[in-house]
Amino acid sequence: MATHYLTEEVQGRYHYTVGPYAAPVLRVRPGDRIVVETQDAFEGKIADATARPSQAVQYPFVNPQNGPIYVEGASRGDALVVRIESIVPRGPQPRGTTCLVPYFGGTTATETTAMLHEPLPEIVRKVEVTETRIRWNDRLTFPYRPFIGTISTSPQIDSIGALTPGNHGGNMDLPDVCPGATIYLPVRVDGALLYLGDCHAIQGDGEVCGVAVEHPTHTTIAVDVRKEWPLSWPRLENDRFIMSIGSARPMEDAARIAYADLVKWMVSDYGFDKWEAYLVLTQVGLARLGNMVDPNYTIGAGIAKEYL
Amino acid sequence: MATHYLTEEVQGRYHYTVGPYAAPVLRVRPGDRIVVETQDAFEGKIADATARPSQAVQYPFVNPQNGPIYVEGASRGDALVVRIESIVPRGPQPRGTTCLVPYFGGTTATETTAMLHEPLPEIVRKVEVTETRIRWNDRLTFPYRPFIGTISTSPQIDSIGALTPGNHGGNMDLPDVCPGATIYLPVRVDGALLYLGDCHAIQGDGEVCGVAVEHPTHTTIAVDVRKEWPLSWPRLENDRFIMSIGSARPMEDAARIAYADLVKWMVSDYGFDKWEAYLVLTQVGLARLGNMVDPNYTIGAGIAKEYL
Amino acid sequence: MATHYLTEEVQGRYHYTVGPYAAPVLRVRPGDRIVVETQDAFEGKIADATARPSQAVQYPFVNPQNGPIYVEGASRGDALVVRIESIVPRGPQPRGTTCLVPYFGGTTATETTAMLHEPLPEIVRKVEVTETRIRWNDRLTFPYRPFIGTISTSPQIDSIGALTPGNHGGNMDLPDVCPGATIYLPVRVDGALLYLGDCHAIQGDGEVCGVAVEHPTHTTIAVDVRKEWPLSWPRLENDRFIMSIGSARPMEDAARIAYADLVKWMVSDYGFDKWEAYLVLTQVGLARLGNMVDPNYTIGAGIAKEYL
Amino acid sequence: MATHYLTEEVQGRYHYTVGPYAAPVLRVRPGDRIVVETQDAFEGKIADATARPSQAVQYPFVNPQNGPIYVEGASRGDALVVRIESIVPRGPQPRGTTCLVPYFGGTTATETTAMLHEPLPEIVRKVEVTETRIRWNDRLTFPYRPFIGTISTSPQIDSIGALTPGNHGGNMDLPDVCPGATIYLPVRVDGALLYLGDCHAIQGDGEVCGVAVEHPTHTTIAVDVRKEWPLSWPRLENDRFIMSIGSARPMEDAARIAYADLVKWMVSDYGFDKWEAYLVLTQVGLARLGNMVDPNYTIGAGIAKEYL
Repeated sequence: MATHYLTEEVQGRYHYTVGPYAAPVLRVRPGDRIVVETQDAFEGKIADATARPSQAVQYPFVNPQNGPIYVEGASRGDALVVRIESIVPRGPQPRGTTCLVPYFGGTTATETTAMLHEPLPEIVRKVEVTETRIRWNDRLTFPYRPFIGTISTSPQIDSIGALTPGNHGGNMDLPDVCPGATIYLPVRVDGALLYLGDCHAIQGDGEVCGVAVEHPTHTTIAVDVRKEWPLSWPRLENDRFIMSIGSARPMEDAARIAYADLVKWMVSDYGFDKWEAYLVLTQVGLARLGNMVDPNYTIGAGIAKEYL
Repeated sequence: MATHYLTEEVQGRYHYTVGPYAAPVLRVRPGDRIVVETQDAFEGKIADATARPSQAVQYPFVNPQNGPIYVEGASRGDALVVRIESIVPRGPQPRGTTCLVPYFGGTTATETTAMLHEPLPEIVRKVEVTETRIRWNDRLTFPYRPFIGTISTSPQIDSIGALTPGNHGGNMDLPDVCPGATIYLPVRVDGALLYLGDCHAIQGDGEVCGVAVEHPTHTTIAVDVRKEWPLSWPRLENDRFIMSIGSARPMEDAARIAYADLVKWMVSDYGFDKWEAYLVLTQVGLARLGNMVDPNYTIGAGIAKEYL
Repeated sequence: MATHYLTEEVQGRYHYTVGPYAAPVLRVRPGDRIVVETQDAFEGKIADATARPSQAVQYPFVNPQNGPIYVEGASRGDALVVRIESIVPRGPQPRGTTCLVPYFGGTTATETTAMLHEPLPEIVRKVEVTETRIRWNDRLTFPYRPFIGTISTSPQIDSIGALTPGNHGGNMDLPDVCPGATIYLPVRVDGALLYLGDCHAIQGDGEVCGVAVEHPTHTTIAVDVRKEWPLSWPRLENDRFIMSIGSARPMEDAARIAYADLVKWMVSDYGFDKWEAYLVLTQVGLARLGNMVDPNYTIGAGIAKEYL
Repeated sequence: MATHYLTEEVQGRYHYTVGPYAAPVLRVRPGDRIVVETQDAFEGKIADATARPSQAVQYPFVNPQNGPIYVEGASRGDALVVRIESIVPRGPQPRGTTCLVPYFGGTTATETTAMLHEPLPEIVRKVEVTETRIRWNDRLTFPYRPFIGTISTSPQIDSIGALTPGNHGGNMDLPDVCPGATIYLPVRVDGALLYLGDCHAIQGDGEVCGVAVEHPTHTTIAVDVRKEWPLSWPRLENDRFIMSIGSARPMEDAARIAYADLVKWMVSDYGFDKWEAYLVLTQVGLARLGNMVDPNYTIGAGIAKEYL
């Protein structure tokens, strides 16, 4: 079990679209560990509070992704198993960035929820992030609760923008994708082609303004392959629960995907009758709103392991 | 501070629509406590596992509500303050009911998400409910986590079906409306006209099949009036957080309502700047999916009191 | 076959909610004709271009409805048949009104699609409306294409705000509800209790700003009863096509309702196989976007009679 | 002005994803005409009524596209102008195909509107298509009303599945994209990289079952470049109206995009004040439901030229 270092230098150019058309930057084997130098979602271009996001960042060159990482032995129909071991902030302080981006967010007109309003103001906030806390201002301190905002395997023939979550994973912005969790992603091309980036120091449910406390990190993962476990949508597991993850619009479709896939999972792997699973989830299902801001919204639906 | 008993006998006919057209069954004063004998959502008509919900229950005569309760001194523009003191199951065992109802639920075609599929099967499950637990089957036991599924003040001139949540409260199916919590409801007519019912012994996020563990209860509440606090949507408070509650379709609108109202609340009552509130909620906001099955979906958006 | 005159005087107070709680203003028999003096949607309160809609009109006292009209012999499970004979503008010029209302419309934040934007500007436009044309400005003239914006039978026990369309009809804002058309509405209470109002001099598909050219009229209808024809949703017929009308959010649900009901109608009344109807509608179905601005959106789905 | 022939032989492999990663099959100049041999959406694999679509076609290898066609002189920020000159059916009879595909369609559970229902039946229908009519069955004949279902320019860095419509065009399934119309598409990479295919012999509004009368064709287009006309979304023009085309979920977002873009277009090119355009469209706007079945729904919003 080797440990690989996917440094900025090894990475070279980061990617803003997730697909089968980029050459792998790393080849690893099942069981290997990888330490990844992730960039923040703006690639460090929002230097201080005077920056204007609409000028500093040129769409679609946002949300830079590390990878693709080729995992030996992963074939279409398998699942890629990614255990998230740790996330540690890196870079000079203040290394946390959040902001309001014009026509982006959960309670603003956007490109697709198109309206005739002028955009909300552009506001940038830079904050200090340590391994334990985020100093929001003189009064407020938030705990450091890091997770991977965007993690994907490659689609079979499409290449999907790094801002978009879908059945390949992507920009789910789901706080459960954190150290201690294992995420399962569908393998659709040889080698799986894993991409990741966009770590958040903390994020509320829904990521309502659209920008969490973005920060560059050293993120350590271990990868494995579960053979012949075809997934329609990403799944996740930790000590407490299992979770299926849906990304779609409208938001109810994300919830439907997540709960329907979880029923399927309970039936195939845990011996539940289909209707029994449906009834049980009605009583003890757990739903987490990941994002309400990206091109698809993300909801995870889970169940505590004690009920399985 | 008097205690009133809204027994089945005092109630007489239950209500299936929430509005200003029914005569009050009780008049109380701010500070009073009321012990309410609620029915289950099927009014006890689903007697055993052989019942067919589509035959036992005739829409719109579902989800029976106690009330209306007239609260002296409550006027349009005030908020009705309802503290939930306790919920205790009542009636003969097995007193818990859940089931699959044709064309009702979160992952089925419905009357409005109309499709050409045949309905899912009708399945009824009766379970024992005590003050501490629910015996699901030989293998599984769920904790008793009761809450009020439906609680409303009267709309000004409309009368809204007891199955529908909205800005008057209604069938929110939000597990946070539980003992220890205080819910704030908009007063739109003299006396507020409080309705409640539909207590759940436990429910998962989203109530995915549409029917939680329904059960009859003794529910004890205390009511108060906060003068001149006009609310657009219901709000809630407990020891840990404050929460705004949105009910709408599509589901993202429920989330938008909840977060936008919470921003407004943080600005008006907690001294936040509007954009600061928006940015803070992005990092530490809490979202709860109440229901994904009713005529409107319900999401609560909250923030821990330590950040206020 | 009598002709009744539902003048302003006979009407007395107009209604802003549609339900079984108001006393009938008129009793008619199947086959009778009724000439109705409708008000405009603002009840004439927007007198000139200097008015501010947010001040002139106090929600929920908008969209005044004539009725209820009790139709002898109509019982639950029947359909009310309303043939629209003519719509003629009345009142002093300029008698047409359109405007921008804060937080109301199709491309603006609203109460339910809640956002942090300031409202769009309030703008009022008064226009001359004759029986043939609408003088928009010096350059533009629109044809007079009148229809009934809001027409309903009473729900069984609910009372629904006059702004809301639903399976009772309501504020569908569907231009096909015009002279020459016959609309079928579900009868849910004895006498059907017909309400109508909100005539538009012209309206584009979707009524995008939310306010068509509103105007007071003499609207002439003839009513009839089709016994034992239980309708889930309103239907419509004219010389060219039959149409089912769905009102819901999100908009796809309105379209699903309309097409699914039309399949049902083609099967029950026109001898189609279910899947054949589905395939035929895929090739020659007609969809009309009524409104994209009301509490529910409305879509009519139709098929030309030549294919039946 | 040359005429190019993009035959099956010149095309070679068709494409199932639309992006910048495929080599151009043709280079043309502004003003040139191209005759394209399009395949039907199933690439001819549904040979007769006994075929099962779920077996004959393997997702994502559906909806084969011709192209990419490199248009000299087209640069990012320009608009590609495509005039549709004619569409003529080709291939042996019966050359029209429609069918029900499991979990695909407007009134069925789908991969994203995920439900617990079994799929609707798979049904295939082959029909004769001539240049004037479609022989549906012994009783019914439909007129031949051909249009291009899928037409796109390349995204900048993403590659989007041929089933998905978006701001690059794509699988809009909009009947207005027919002979006599000119469609404007945003140029995002050098040469525009035009893809097209998926011609329909006829289609109803919304394409409710998801499969129109698909057929192979000779489609003749002429291309041009409008320099420095950056488009956010596709636009269309014919003798009667101009139209903006939105594709999104939920469906109201497609309508919002279309109307908001049309307001913008009326302001920039036709001298309208923004609010005036909004008010005028409310009275005379035209909306067309393209599809209610694809990964995004499509609505076109237009206005008759007489009002410009």
